[in-house]
Amino acid sequence: MNITITGAFATKFGELWSSSPRSLAKTAATEAIKDAATEPLSIDALFVGNMLSGMLGGQEHLGAFFREELGLSCPAFKIEGACASGGLAVHMGVLAIRSGMYNRVLVLGIEKMTDHKPEDIARALMGAGSEGERISGATFPGLYAILARSHMDMFGTKEEDLAMIAVKNHFHAVKNPKAHFQTLLTLEKAMRSTCITDPLKLYDCSPISDGAAAVLLESNNSKHNKTHANKNPVTIIASQVATDSLGLAERTSLIELSATKQASRCAFKEAKVSPADIDVAEVHDCFTIAELLAMEDIGFYTKGNAAEAIRKKETTLGISKKLVINPSGGLKACGHPVGATGVKQIVEIVDQLRNRCGERQVNHAHIGLTHNVGGSGATAVVHILRSKK
Amino acid sequence: MNITITGAFATKFGELWSSSPRSLAKTAATEAIKDAATEPLSIDALFVGNMLSGMLGGQEHLGAFFREELGLSCPAFKIEGACASGGLAVHMGVLAIRSGMYNRVLVLGIEKMTDHKPEDIARALMGAGSEGERISGATFPGLYAILARSHMDMFGTKEEDLAMIAVKNHFHAVKNPKAHFQTLLTLEKAMRSTCITDPLKLYDCSPISDGAAAVLLESNNSKHNKTHANKNPVTIIASQVATDSLGLAERTSLIELSATKQASRCAFKEAKVSPADIDVAEVHDCFTIAELLAMEDIGFYTKGNAAEAIRKKETTLGISKKLVINPSGGLKACGHPVGATGVKQIVEIVDQLRNRCGERQVNHAHIGLTHNVGGSGATAVVHILRSKK
Repeated sequence: MNITITGAFATKFGELWSSSPRSLAKTAATEAIKDAATEPLSIDALFVGNMLSGMLGGQEHLGAFFREELGLSCPAFKIEGACASGGLAVHMGVLAIRSGMYNRVLVLGIEKMTDHKPEDIARALMGAGSEGERISGATFPGLYAILARSHMDMFGTKEEDLAMIAVKNHFHAVKNPKAHFQTLLTLEKAMRSTCITDPLKLYDCSPISDGAAAVLLESNNSKHNKTHANKNPVTIIASQVATDSLGLAERTSLIELSATKQASRCAFKEAKVSPADIDVAEVHDCFTIAELLAMEDIGFYTKGNAAEAIRKKETTLGISKKLVINPSGGLKACGHPVGATGVKQIVEIVDQLRNRCGERQVNHAHIGLTHNVGGSGATAVVHILRSKK
Repeated sequence: MNITITGAFATKFGELWSSSPRSLAKTAATEAIKDAATEPLSIDALFVGNMLSGMLGGQEHLGAFFREELGLSCPAFKIEGACASGGLAVHMGVLAIRSGMYNRVLVLGIEKMTDHKPEDIARALMGAGSEGERISGATFPGLYAILARSHMDMFGTKEEDLAMIAVKNHFHAVKNPKAHFQTLLTLEKAMRSTCITDPLKLYDCSPISDGAAAVLLESNNSKHNKTHANKNPVTIIASQVATDSLGLAERTSLIELSATKQASRCAFKEAKVSPADIDVAEVHDCFTIAELLAMEDIGFYTKGNAAEAIRKKETTLGISKKLVINPSGGLKACGHPVGATGVKQIVEIVDQLRNRCGERQVNHAHIGLTHNVGGSGATAVVHILRSKK
């Protein structure tokens, strides 16, 4: 059963010190519900994707927490899978509708990070890693640096190639009024930036952000849905999850994320499309190396060949002849409020497929893909969406 | 679509200082899988119910964490809804199978609490409450004391009535080798125990426990399932969730949990049975008043009449002519490792319906009910199970 996304909205991402989790959730949900031309009381279930609210803020039970804030009357659930919490919440929404138990589901992804001390955030984020990694004092920049170094050693990938991904994503984000960073980045500036964990520099890393995003999902059979048929509805034609070991040490390969490969393979099979059919993708570039790995693991490029595509700017808006990657600016430049990210990716693709992205609109976008990762690749969620036109 | 529970197992509950979360999960899952006569690699999805691992232990991403530990190869998810996390995880497993995307699902409920300082546990548990309750320094004994006082004021319920619930549940737990407390409790001892939050005394409160429980769910259509048909399979004939406000202050009534009423009403409708059809129930007695409220809100007794039934020992094993409540000892005496509780309730009912409860076996148990609550009633999950015989 395919599922229609009838409403989608993401808040501004950034250091939103004057916004509370409540206000961010309210804005995202209210606007998504408005976009669907429906009302809160008609919603059958709420799925909240969030990672850090308990560890940083002491508040759990977020399903009930936000249900109340949003004035809903339905059952509510919180899903946690580290930085893939948002994507997993969307997948749960899909399961809920396909089960036949719920017809209209609101999925909310949210994270409020910048109110907390950087060292507390870094410690909390390591909740996504393995026990061994946590005990040994590893951080996610360090873990992704290992992946970057492995890829460089194997394929001759250069620091400049990674920096070019950041340059592209900043270029896209300038056209996105909701992006955390709306500033152009030059290759020189990226290459000169502070080393964080060699070979990753400051501009290879996504920021700590606040933000929320919401989508309203409906069964294709629902009555309300049919009244929307004329508004170019977007359909979820694949929703797949794969899980791998938490820690890098337990993996058989450090030049790929096998969960991404598996979830993508299943998603393409479910959607009956191939990587070549995708017009626009939002992939999980928590670090620049992550986008490069995603380009290969999803199957857009063969292993070892993404760097050349980056050098040729093949995935840059306005230059790309086919696939544009991370038109929103990605996690790198649009921002990465962890629980919100997976839902915001869906919002961006919906907006692209509905042709309402203004300056960053990808021409002729018909089929889009989202790719959300938890930890250093322990969880991967892939969705494929299609517009009717 | 009905779903069969082909395997079920709960570990010993208690202060398990020599057991790690890993070892508890491993025991529960391995035994549940063995009970189903299947193997880990045949499992299509893992749903983990847990509340406190992030706040107390710094470890999130528990889906991937336990999937790895259990040697599974499937996608994995963590569901959080305070003390209802386990029940919600079972509900998610039901949705997953009904969606048609997953055929065989393992649900694991787990909590490791006693390694932490009591004040840290109390603080973390308040993550289940409202912001106002947390800021004002309320605790769950305090919140349930308000409910108890309201019920006493309205219906003349006595402290002795509440104590009798504890006496019954300790009486049941003596017959349960896995119970946290295997000691008889007298009414006199209960009444003399330390006041925690008036009118609740020490023996009105469930303990802080460690433990894990697991169930294996399968589609009734699955091939493997059919080979099990001769082992008196237990079927989930209803799975319902309802959500209410997080805080007591936002409720319209303090003499009932409306989420329990709503989830129960929907569950009886889905199962096409009535409260009078239930032979055995595991209800959420985090405090004695909670069992009394559940007896009324589920519909076993009309509002205000449960206390009399308690005085008459109508729900006590060996005395009851029909419905036995909390034969395991309930949260009160079997223990309450929060994320594990909702799954352990299912395990107990499965064991009762399969006639394998030894000394605490309820005679002629054919239809059973579980009732799992999050917070002071913000989340309620009700399942109804039926044996074939």
